[in-house]
Amino acid sequence: METCTNAPEKGTLYGVSVGPGDPENLTLKAVRVLKAADVIAAPSTGRNRQTALGIVADYIAGKPIVDCLTPMSKDLAVVARAHDKIADDICALLDEGKDVAFITLGDAGVYSTYYYTHERVVARGYRAEVVPGVTSFCDAAARLGRPLCEGSEPLLVVPVSTGDTEALLDVPANKVFMKSGKAIGALRDTLAERGELDDAAAVANSGLADEQLCEHFADLDVERGYFSVVLYRKGAHKAGEGEGGRLS
Amino acid sequence: METCTNAPEKGTLYGVSVGPGDPENLTLKAVRVLKAADVIAAPSTGRNRQTALGIVADYIAGKPIVDCLTPMSKDLAVVARAHDKIADDICALLDEGKDVAFITLGDAGVYSTYYYTHERVVARGYRAEVVPGVTSFCDAAARLGRPLCEGSEPLLVVPVSTGDTEALLDVPANKVFMKSGKAIGALRDTLAERGELDDAAAVANSGLADEQLCEHFADLDVERGYFSVVLYRKGAHKAGEGEGGRLS
Repeated sequence: METCTNAPEKGTLYGVSVGPGDPENLTLKAVRVLKAADVIAAPSTGRNRQTALGIVADYIAGKPIVDCLTPMSKDLAVVARAHDKIADDICALLDEGKDVAFITLGDAGVYSTYYYTHERVVARGYRAEVVPGVTSFCDAAARLGRPLCEGSEPLLVVPVSTGDTEALLDVPANKVFMKSGKAIGALRDTLAERGELDDAAAVANSGLADEQLCEHFADLDVERGYFSVVLYRKGAHKAGEGEGGRLS
Repeated sequence: METCTNAPEKGTLYGVSVGPGDPENLTLKAVRVLKAADVIAAPSTGRNRQTALGIVADYIAGKPIVDCLTPMSKDLAVVARAHDKIADDICALLDEGKDVAFITLGDAGVYSTYYYTHERVVARGYRAEVVPGVTSFCDAAARLGRPLCEGSEPLLVVPVSTGDTEALLDVPANKVFMKSGKAIGALRDTLAERGELDDAAAVANSGLADEQLCEHFADLDVERGYFSVVLYRKGAHKAGEGEGGRLS
């Protein structure tokens, strides 16, 4: 095996979590990595992409942006090929010695597509690091001034795309529902039927111009809730009864 | 009702999430609020307190620190009185027009004691705002380079203190277990009995001098795992099979 000492040292891929919307939710590490990166990789298309790029805009001026397009397909082979292509493009940059910052909304570990690229790039022998960030549900809870979970309360996060939300409703836990489009209205109806609507709050499009902060989920305009986080906690609106009641 | 126009404007309480250990996980907003605060409130005692103060040390030099002591008691009346006392102390500062930053490890909404103070202070008519942060489990996943949840996978967070971890093991979800002391060893034994140990990873004391990063939970030295985050994901060590296998 020949060694070419003039070859540039390979670059590093960084999965940079940028939080759900407010640029002030960026971490110090995210800012450092973004400023130092040679190339920005931006996933997906449309609104999410513009949101992510908007959050980091102050730190990436002049840097080239690579598009990472994932098709909205249920054909796993089609999706896998798209992820292979993204990995090809990024590894070509790493071979040139460039550090690539792949920006991802919320936290990279929570319903992001980042890891499809991360695992491919690592499997090919490149360095990849993940920068954690603020999740949409931590942000939503903070905006509403209410805890997600305290003491002995488990917390169940139910994703946008799960097929069987109903089966999870009986799990004895506080719950976060991440929903978009028509699923928000269906969830509201289901919680109402179960008598749980009063204990649910909702935040839509957090940190963006059209955000909605609703202490009561019932007040959410579901037609304008492009992406919503619904927080369910039994007895949430019975504060002031002391810790005993709140931990029930 | 008399109005005293010379009274100072009341201060604001900020619940500042400082992340699980690495000061670079602080958000830009956390840093701004810490720098601007007049007084720092530090919860609890011992190791957690020192960890939280260590994370923010660069931003609070010279600021007075108020101790917020919560007794380790199962007597709810004793705990409630302690939280009343904390609220009294903080409201006295707010009355002087001082802004108080209450620092809390991880994210304020996730198993923090911050909200016991927040709710009391808000109920008394003061302003209180929450600054969200990086949770210990998002940090642990990032450190290990593995996702918490993808696609349609629900995520269940099981706290340190829950009485009935066993009952939650059958919930069809990826899981985060937050455990300390002897509970870590018991959890390891339980997962081994269920044949799930191979799909669990663990991080102990993240970002601190004695941290342990274990892709395999079995490798964790539970005697040194003061505070551990265990990540369980079915099929986690079968990467490379394509998205189909990973989303099963």
